[in-house]
Amino acid sequence: MNVVIVGLGLIGGSLAIDLRANGFAKKIIGVEQSEEHCTLARYRGLVDDILLLPAALKKADVVILAVPVNTIIKLLPNILDQVAETTTVLDMGSTKQAICESIKNHPKRKQFVPTHPMAGTEFSGPNAAQRNLFLNRTVVICDAQNSDPEHLRVVDRIYELLQTRKTYMTSVEHDLHTAYISHLSHISSFVLANTVLDKEKNVGTIFDLAGGGFDSTVRLAKSAPETWAPIFEQNHQYIIEALATYIKKLQHFQTTLEQHNFDETKELMKHANGIKRILKNINPQGKQA
Amino acid sequence: MNVVIVGLGLIGGSLAIDLRANGFAKKIIGVEQSEEHCTLARYRGLVDDILLLPAALKKADVVILAVPVNTIIKLLPNILDQVAETTTVLDMGSTKQAICESIKNHPKRKQFVPTHPMAGTEFSGPNAAQRNLFLNRTVVICDAQNSDPEHLRVVDRIYELLQTRKTYMTSVEHDLHTAYISHLSHISSFVLANTVLDKEKNVGTIFDLAGGGFDSTVRLAKSAPETWAPIFEQNHQYIIEALATYIKKLQHFQTTLEQHNFDETKELMKHANGIKRILKNINPQGKQA
Repeated sequence: MNVVIVGLGLIGGSLAIDLRANGFAKKIIGVEQSEEHCTLARYRGLVDDILLLPAALKKADVVILAVPVNTIIKLLPNILDQVAETTTVLDMGSTKQAICESIKNHPKRKQFVPTHPMAGTEFSGPNAAQRNLFLNRTVVICDAQNSDPEHLRVVDRIYELLQTRKTYMTSVEHDLHTAYISHLSHISSFVLANTVLDKEKNVGTIFDLAGGGFDSTVRLAKSAPETWAPIFEQNHQYIIEALATYIKKLQHFQTTLEQHNFDETKELMKHANGIKRILKNINPQGKQA
Repeated sequence: MNVVIVGLGLIGGSLAIDLRANGFAKKIIGVEQSEEHCTLARYRGLVDDILLLPAALKKADVVILAVPVNTIIKLLPNILDQVAETTTVLDMGSTKQAICESIKNHPKRKQFVPTHPMAGTEFSGPNAAQRNLFLNRTVVICDAQNSDPEHLRVVDRIYELLQTRKTYMTSVEHDLHTAYISHLSHISSFVLANTVLDKEKNVGTIFDLAGGGFDSTVRLAKSAPETWAPIFEQNHQYIIEALATYIKKLQHFQTTLEQHNFDETKELMKHANGIKRILKNINPQGKQA
């Protein structure tokens, strides 16, 4: 297969490594606007060639979009316009509703498979690309009934080779669930970082005390604003709902402290401990993946 | 040295392992109320003996309190009453002001050294005890001027052998900084877990999607309520202040989404990225410690 990867950052670069290693890709062509990323991707040997989008699409059996979600919406209609009728197009975006909406009436809609692999790190760019990023993770495949079975099979094969578990939902369900589980986590981290940075003008103090759990809670605050601003924009309705619930629960927690109702504080924590039975299935040793 | 460790949980058990391995302790005597913990500690060979507190104190060169902070306040005056005048007493509690306050007029105050090693995991009990828990972490030593140099030297030696960096502050400064850096992280995790658990009645969905960062952000929500409720109680004033700031900043973040002011959303994230230059010093590979 000739695989075109649009965007050679953490996700696109990691895909390139794995799809070459597992034999899915005979040839990998990168499309990348950033000169710096092109240089790094060439240096690391991530791709066989880097071309402009139109030239790349002419050779593509599979096109994978691994760019920020606002860029996906900008590029996707044009890509579908240009690809052959046998080419499979998939995206890796962290939102799904707006992306699916943007091409819902496109004559080649059935060649497109919207996917979201729940994998990543807080790092970005081709230097952050790594082997097995998708191993034992979950990919959400959305609105499968709107894609042609032939193209779904190609996407299935890719994720089978990556050893990524598949789960299916509508793009609406996807955006609601990820608002709570992924997007809210990022906001809670970004804002925690800002709260502490603004308070602790003496940076040495944070460094000294961060071993107490702060470091893992705030890990996601290192994530790229260029990636996350468009995600928050596209999914703002569900995120606002999730954030409102989170704030309300924080206020309740605060009230228990103000009222010295520490029995209730303890009850809230016991309830939160319920997350153990879920997370232990992901990280049996409690190690960060 | 005969070392008495009061509390054989994660912290006390880990100390026992290291203080034996590095040769500081000739004999380690545990004091532990829970039958289950006693059995586990014996099974793992963490201690040479388990005694009741009065018997243990008679043999103690060093007494280390590794119990929840409310229990420290309960036990500390009695322990100082009973120990010999050459015995060093230190605690490992996550709060400092209330503990120091509780014995400030005790005639043996100078034998006590308040410490807080910024180390731990979200697990608890003797089974969670591990080697090198304190390695390359930071310990805060509080109100050093109120401790006798001779006893400070014993505590220095312990942390040198554990290879834990020392930092000094007042107990008031300690409680303020840890409210923002450690205690707030725990609350943000506990409440994030509750927000998601209440929304996602279908536990399978959390499991599927947790790879996107949720797992690390919510890690601390697994922490023991028995440990944390007394911490939140003793430090509630500073924690309420930190929590109020956090909530205010979350509301501001939410407003940028509501007003579609995504440029400002992005600015908030860029500011949060400032945490990178601090955390990279802790985890150079970005790995969870």
